[in-house]
Amino acid sequence: MRIIVDAMGSDRRPAPDVRGAVDAAREYDVEILLVGDETRIRAELNKLGAVPSSVSLQHASQEIEMREHPALAVKEKKDASIVVGIEQLKQARADAFVSMGNTGAVLAASVLHLQRIKGVHRPALGALFPTPQGPCLLIDVGANTDCKPEWLEQFGIMGESYMRAVLGMEQPRVALLANGEEETKGNQDVQAAHVLLKQRAQSTGMNFIGNVEGKDIAARLADVIVADGFVGNIALKTAEGISKMLNDLIRSEIKSSPLTMMGGALAMPAFTKVKKILDYTEYGGAPLLGVNGVVIIGHGRSNEVAVKHAVRAAMRAVESQILETIRSGVTPRA
Amino acid sequence: MRIIVDAMGSDRRPAPDVRGAVDAAREYDVEILLVGDETRIRAELNKLGAVPSSVSLQHASQEIEMREHPALAVKEKKDASIVVGIEQLKQARADAFVSMGNTGAVLAASVLHLQRIKGVHRPALGALFPTPQGPCLLIDVGANTDCKPEWLEQFGIMGESYMRAVLGMEQPRVALLANGEEETKGNQDVQAAHVLLKQRAQSTGMNFIGNVEGKDIAARLADVIVADGFVGNIALKTAEGISKMLNDLIRSEIKSSPLTMMGGALAMPAFTKVKKILDYTEYGGAPLLGVNGVVIIGHGRSNEVAVKHAVRAAMRAVESQILETIRSGVTPRA
Repeated sequence: MRIIVDAMGSDRRPAPDVRGAVDAAREYDVEILLVGDETRIRAELNKLGAVPSSVSLQHASQEIEMREHPALAVKEKKDASIVVGIEQLKQARADAFVSMGNTGAVLAASVLHLQRIKGVHRPALGALFPTPQGPCLLIDVGANTDCKPEWLEQFGIMGESYMRAVLGMEQPRVALLANGEEETKGNQDVQAAHVLLKQRAQSTGMNFIGNVEGKDIAARLADVIVADGFVGNIALKTAEGISKMLNDLIRSEIKSSPLTMMGGALAMPAFTKVKKILDYTEYGGAPLLGVNGVVIIGHGRSNEVAVKHAVRAAMRAVESQILETIRSGVTPRA
Repeated sequence: MRIIVDAMGSDRRPAPDVRGAVDAAREYDVEILLVGDETRIRAELNKLGAVPSSVSLQHASQEIEMREHPALAVKEKKDASIVVGIEQLKQARADAFVSMGNTGAVLAASVLHLQRIKGVHRPALGALFPTPQGPCLLIDVGANTDCKPEWLEQFGIMGESYMRAVLGMEQPRVALLANGEEETKGNQDVQAAHVLLKQRAQSTGMNFIGNVEGKDIAARLADVIVADGFVGNIALKTAEGISKMLNDLIRSEIKSSPLTMMGGALAMPAFTKVKKILDYTEYGGAPLLGVNGVVIIGHGRSNEVAVKHAVRAAMRAVESQILETIRSGVTPRA
């Protein structure tokens, strides 16, 4: 198996991207194709001692910044690492593509070059949300706004496939994100999607558990939580914002007196454990589901561990034939 | 000034409701009309020593549970404390109504009996979101789904009026909650509301700062954050869920060893300070804006301090003539 890694993806590129990819090649049974600025990648590789022969390199002279307009950048920068990487995947030079770069650009390049799986209305971006009981997949977190009920239904199907295939869950609980648990809650599209998913559950055995509320994400009442990309993005980022605020506030209050500082130092193992439990780097990245190719997108802040784990997630997705599962899942019912 | 307090509102009713109301009568220059089961209210009052003569009582034989269907309950239970309280307000027997009860029922009773302010498309529920930099008003948090752009525009106008009047802000920053900061982000309705609010800012001097993301709520990049009630409800509850999860997780990890427990004990003042900073009871309740009456709805979990502060919020809203401000704000532009 061969995985393409965008070397120019993360905020501190290419160091975390190259190191994580090399670590993956050392630890897992996988070939790596690094795509990006050859000189900078070689400089980074030179710091890493003996690099396995399973790591190869494809030059790409351009890179897409986080601030750039995704669709425009993808069209204008034909030699950007994201575009070159996705093209390599399209030409079947590898089995999956992993990037910590501009999410919108990876999405745009994927839709443009790999195209949608036949039968998929809209590809969607899933995010693995860490909780003490394990990860929950929130889908979509920003690829689509103004989603129709049929799109939402498919997000549920694709999300269920991913949690089965990549996380090995047997009967993932699928739910719709809404403003109340009752079936009558939700906006018009969510209410209509509720009916579709209920039918789906009856015909296929999908474990659809109905609506969940915002507070149920962290409580992990479901394994796959379906949302319009506008709503999912707001939920995900609200959660990130609250975590950061609480973390910053606790830190600054602990530093405010010698006694609390001492307490903080003694309690440090507890904080470290909490951090580990909620460590996003464990899952490595968010899958883009519904295109003809395995694509994993990680956070710009990713470190080398996150990159390595994103490669692992991509490997599992390939091994489990996630694309085939989605293909058969989205085939219209007879 | 006279404020009606629903004695049968909170989860532990009538104790916190009656105590908070009596405390308000003792501390502020206000008359209180307690509405609810006379026997139970008197029993509670008897525990409180000398009750000020400014506290009076109106019997209501029924109460609406949290789990009941709001609109149905309001229609069927004519003698519920919420219904009787709102009717007292309608008949101008008092200046405002405060309840810690079923939010949907207060909303339904208010819309049914008080009716909308002329020119208001839809009343909206605001929630004061505590941050280290002070509260931010998220509006709407659940009164309306499938909001039209004009409704969102008015939520901005009503929210701005509230923050000016009740929190004394001179130029509250008004923003739209979206999946990105750029003007082009958002779903169709949010994009259309963006145009309306921008025009509004030009014609009235409203301090409209554009879009904010989910993470910007806790960072308090805006003072008033406008959202469809479906989206606002999800953001608010996601935030609640994350806070609870982090709180529970830190507690349980600190308890996991004697050393970290000792650290936790020493660091306790820092945790207490954090709790105080993010204390929802400080603001007491969420305003229902856009109906012909000052209505403040608090959390079912409210304690007596929250009830007292909800009365204070109602007093400030009355003093500042919030209804007049909203009335003139929503008058169609010439």
